[in-house]
Amino acid sequence: MTRRSAFPPGRPPPRLRRLPLPADAADLRWLEAAARLAARGQPLSRPNPAVGALLVRAGRVVGRGWTQPGGRPHAEAMALEAAGEAARGATLYVTLEPCAHASPRGPACADLTASAGLARVVIGCSDPDPRTAGAGAARLTEAGVPVDQVDSPACTTSLAGYLTRTRLGRPRVTLKLALSLDGALALPNGESRWITGPAARAHTHALRARTDAILVGGGTLRTDAPRLDVRLPGLAGRSPERWVLTGGTAPAGWRAIPAPAAIHGLSPAQTLFVEGGARTAAAFLAADLVDQLLIYRAPIVIGAGRPGIADLGLTSLGDAHGRWCQVDRRTLGSDTLEVYERTRST
Amino acid sequence: MTRRSAFPPGRPPPRLRRLPLPADAADLRWLEAAARLAARGQPLSRPNPAVGALLVRAGRVVGRGWTQPGGRPHAEAMALEAAGEAARGATLYVTLEPCAHASPRGPACADLTASAGLARVVIGCSDPDPRTAGAGAARLTEAGVPVDQVDSPACTTSLAGYLTRTRLGRPRVTLKLALSLDGALALPNGESRWITGPAARAHTHALRARTDAILVGGGTLRTDAPRLDVRLPGLAGRSPERWVLTGGTAPAGWRAIPAPAAIHGLSPAQTLFVEGGARTAAAFLAADLVDQLLIYRAPIVIGAGRPGIADLGLTSLGDAHGRWCQVDRRTLGSDTLEVYERTRST
Repeated sequence: MTRRSAFPPGRPPPRLRRLPLPADAADLRWLEAAARLAARGQPLSRPNPAVGALLVRAGRVVGRGWTQPGGRPHAEAMALEAAGEAARGATLYVTLEPCAHASPRGPACADLTASAGLARVVIGCSDPDPRTAGAGAARLTEAGVPVDQVDSPACTTSLAGYLTRTRLGRPRVTLKLALSLDGALALPNGESRWITGPAARAHTHALRARTDAILVGGGTLRTDAPRLDVRLPGLAGRSPERWVLTGGTAPAGWRAIPAPAAIHGLSPAQTLFVEGGARTAAAFLAADLVDQLLIYRAPIVIGAGRPGIADLGLTSLGDAHGRWCQVDRRTLGSDTLEVYERTRST
Repeated sequence: MTRRSAFPPGRPPPRLRRLPLPADAADLRWLEAAARLAARGQPLSRPNPAVGALLVRAGRVVGRGWTQPGGRPHAEAMALEAAGEAARGATLYVTLEPCAHASPRGPACADLTASAGLARVVIGCSDPDPRTAGAGAARLTEAGVPVDQVDSPACTTSLAGYLTRTRLGRPRVTLKLALSLDGALALPNGESRWITGPAARAHTHALRARTDAILVGGGTLRTDAPRLDVRLPGLAGRSPERWVLTGGTAPAGWRAIPAPAAIHGLSPAQTLFVEGGARTAAAFLAADLVDQLLIYRAPIVIGAGRPGIADLGLTSLGDAHGRWCQVDRRTLGSDTLEVYERTRST
């Protein structure tokens, strides 16, 4: 239904004064915008975190930055360079605490930021890297720049891979499944192409372009010989590392992972996408090494099909409950993407 | 975030004139309201359809009615009696075409309605019963009452069981499944209590109170001895008929259904709720006798659990696609209810 104007023609509507948002809400909005900017750095900023930075003066953006390919320049440096003199008196919104450690590749962002004449710095997420871990914010405060640390869900989500890597020493693991309504990934006869439609498969390719590594099981590699590359125009260069869960050797172009726990400290990968099959999914779930579950659900019924997840050795339903929480859901063509996060106390 | 008034204190906000909806949209809204009223008649109106009727004059409701237990009085008669003299000049919104056949239990609603001095009658759904099937509307038109037949989705949904019963000679079949994310209804060891939480189970009880019959398989009856009654305060009297899918005999209080196709012409039931187990679900799906699929989805992963649907004999994925369309979804505690309708060309 079209909503018609409540004011009769000929008479101008009254001017509505736009009231400013409460300060903290406005900060959260700018940090969300910075997190969207950070996505441009994913995944080519590796091994550095993909950070986003916005310089705002009098409600207007005067500079934008995100971590560049290979990790330098950092987002803050890019935003300050873009703003030039306009940075004086501006507020810096940055998704991650500015780094406190100089490197041969550039100065510490905390120092760079402290000398820019900023009115304020708003940080969306503290940096757990022991070289920064509060030292970045402290250096700004010492230099007389007011710092607000805000707990921004958008920033934490945007940095999830980096935070997992830094805190737990392993990449953040996403398990992807394409399932029928009754949880099958193939017919009883093994036919599996396709369960989901083109929109869901294109979505997977877009996620692959954002991830550092993809893993499949040895059986899936032998049977399906998946390319696991990014088949999207202009993004082929973003194809991730290819890992295979196998006790044996990996073919050329693949890295062998003998067991799920071996993802600890393997490479600087911040994000790992586990794509199947059912035994590999079960191995990562049984090891409690899945942080996010992506289920592409097709509106089809198969009946006694091949299960998407092999035996986990579960013997009590009580052990199954309370581990997953749905955080997102979207329609992709006739399919539905369900996103679940592992609920952890940390 | 709280939205604050855009008008400064001390100055009264301008009066907003409420514009009327376009005529057809207003009709659809009143028919939706009539359909909500009809729900009060479910399922105790059986064997009659649960109809809702609203009398509206100058934008105000002057009479309301719904089919009473046992089928009489009809909704139109109840609304007209409630309105009394106020019915003159009013518009009648009724979910189903007024009946054209008198019975020993009361006059035909078309005649009753034609003589009430109404300004207009708006019908949300034609009656496929051959004794009415257009004759009800025709009788009103002949009597000089303007009739609008509107295709109201709310009315069609509210009468879905009656329409299936009248057109296909069988109840409308809803298959209910309570599944894990990976489509299991139990652990590999058979443990199945509980997959879903209390909110989902209470929702099932509320649906049982609205259905005419519930069916389980012989195996489920022997193993679980389900009561299938309505365990909600005040609704115990609404417990539906209990049917069991079995080649043998049924225990006392149960009716034996030898095969899914036997639901044709069995009883006047308009709605049948199939509650499991996996072989019964597969039997109804394989016979293409499921109209609606309700999946209560718990956010748990089981891994190689007992599948919710047994083998359907499917040999090609192409045969699985295009049969189901998601029409509703809601959150029930930590679970999700997904509702799918069978897409049929009829």
